Amino acid sequence: MNKHGGYYGENQEKVLDFSVNINPLGITEKVKEKLIESINTINRYPEIDGESVKKVLADRLNVETSQVIIGNGVIELIYLFARAFCPNKVVIIQPTFNEYLRAFNLTGSIICNYELTYSNDFNLETNALLGYLKETKPDLLILCNPNNPTGHFIRYKDLLPVISYIKEIGAYLLLDESFIDFTDEESCVNHVKEFPIFILRSMTKFYAIPGLRLGYGIANSNIINKLNEYKEPWTINTFALSIVSTILDDEAFYKESKKWLQAEKSYLYKELKKMKSIDFFNSQANFILCRVKKGNAYEMREKLMKYNIYIRVCDDFVGLDNTYFRVAIKSHKDNVKLINAIKEILQ
Amino acid sequence: MNKHGGYYGENQEKVLDFSVNINPLGITEKVKEKLIESINTINRYPEIDGESVKKVLADRLNVETSQVIIGNGVIELIYLFARAFCPNKVVIIQPTFNEYLRAFNLTGSIICNYELTYSNDFNLETNALLGYLKETKPDLLILCNPNNPTGHFIRYKDLLPVISYIKEIGAYLLLDESFIDFTDEESCVNHVKEFPIFILRSMTKFYAIPGLRLGYGIANSNIINKLNEYKEPWTINTFALSIVSTILDDEAFYKESKKWLQAEKSYLYKELKKMKSIDFFNSQANFILCRVKKGNAYEMREKLMKYNIYIRVCDDFVGLDNTYFRVAIKSHKDNVKLINAIKEILQ
Repeated sequence: MNKHGGYYGENQEKVLDFSVNINPLGITEKVKEKLIESINTINRYPEIDGESVKKVLADRLNVETSQVIIGNGVIELIYLFARAFCPNKVVIIQPTFNEYLRAFNLTGSIICNYELTYSNDFNLETNALLGYLKETKPDLLILCNPNNPTGHFIRYKDLLPVISYIKEIGAYLLLDESFIDFTDEESCVNHVKEFPIFILRSMTKFYAIPGLRLGYGIANSNIINKLNEYKEPWTINTFALSIVSTILDDEAFYKESKKWLQAEKSYLYKELKKMKSIDFFNSQANFILCRVKKGNAYEMREKLMKYNIYIRVCDDFVGLDNTYFRVAIKSHKDNVKLINAIKEILQ
Repeated sequence: MNKHGGYYGENQEKVLDFSVNINPLGITEKVKEKLIESINTINRYPEIDGESVKKVLADRLNVETSQVIIGNGVIELIYLFARAFCPNKVVIIQPTFNEYLRAFNLTGSIICNYELTYSNDFNLETNALLGYLKETKPDLLILCNPNNPTGHFIRYKDLLPVISYIKEIGAYLLLDESFIDFTDEESCVNHVKEFPIFILRSMTKFYAIPGLRLGYGIANSNIINKLNEYKEPWTINTFALSIVSTILDDEAFYKESKKWLQAEKSYLYKELKKMKSIDFFNSQANFILCRVKKGNAYEMREKLMKYNIYIRVCDDFVGLDNTYFRVAIKSHKDNVKLINAIKEILQ
């Protein structure tokens, strides 16, 4: 099993954990109140498949309730898709979140890793991808958009030839938009009726609730029906279900989060640019992939631990090695600490 | 997907829900405090597989940490076992909790339902079962103990010939002890080293936290290792993990629960015995299976709904029909309401 998911070592309370990509604004008082209120209902079973939350989400997304599925985090839905569809051949655009690989390995799929390269700044060229798909003819293509860990985003109009080809050959696209709330880009959610796309959305990251576990998926109702045939009952807890309306209604939180991210990304870019021995990649998400030009990222992590700062070494991502690390974008105070620590280390 | 899990219709707040088997004592102030405290940590990922809770449980159960696995409710572990072991042939002792059937249908197992009968008061005769097992030679036997919905319990010493035979033929026993805390009987947990048993335990029912989702499994470490190969990460939320020590340490709650159950079971037995047109079965759990001698249980449910009382009709259990219903044992006040309502209906 995976070993990531944040720092769990000694002095956990003191350590600034840049390895997990969570909105540092945290939950609001309103969410807190809602959670406290929900304690009174934990002596009841949660809805078997989160029906009322499906309705809330469907209304927001302007889709039908039958096009939505709720999960105990996006993770449940990745594994569920693998089990329900058991695709024979899967193309995964790498480097990316490594649970896709594990989920489809478990169902015995043939995995074809389509690796983006450092020399091309890990950019996806759809023409080249299309060529690869025509060669491999997969049953499923997996794309994380924006991608973890590169932070790159590809727009619908650029992706369209790929999606059209996927449809043409009777395959599916699993499109993980877990980090899309951090971008100003448009989701593919309006295209699930015309194309065989299963879109994943996480509420964990933008709304700072990884401890609660909450994600959802959107697709045409044929895909959702098939997933429901395999879905386990009562996977989403009462607390997670209770706060969905509250967090989605909070426009102030949304705006404040956007403002924070823009300011802090600019700050980090500006500072990282000054560092001659570190490469980094422009990100549309709330994290930045970096690369040390000398030595390896484990050394960097060890040195940063002396400042009680923990970073994510990325050598377990397909196509990356131990020179890569990823940092979350955190509060200004924390980002300053990170930058100052790296500066001291590189001196 | 299943439709049970409690009443979710109109006037939900007013309805006394006898269809779900939850300890009516509810959570204590200590648990409530712990949950409120945990709100401060939901911006972190929960432990990937609940490692620290495994240790707590292993200590209590006097087993190794490597012999414990935590689940998002027992449900996760039932489906996980099905996926990890993919048994070719499964014998399920019926009537019982119907998620076993669904889980092993999904993995394509051949299901052999071994049906206990009304004429034999749904008692399990191990000799007869042994004969059936010798005939069918399954890869897995599933027994819920005490059984839902009959409430019957079978002791280790009586089960031993069956368990020995299961071991002899290289099969497994999935032993669901979700309701064992309500009995005064001994668990099979001390025998997981010598026998291929996967024991399931729920914390949902006795500790009145179905909304939180929490269960665990115990088996020899070979079985647990195999399950971990297939286990999905981060399935157990922060709240569920946070309260385990608190609820297990609360001896007063344990004693009070036992006292309540004994008193209320006696009360319900005494009153049900007076009803000539209702059969019932002695239960070692916190629910009682009943049977109307005339008409069907849907009529009874409809009539009880006029008293804002909801019962579980059991016609979806293999081997039962629409004359059967199940009632949870609730608080004295609620049980009196149930009995008085049934009396009025039967008049």
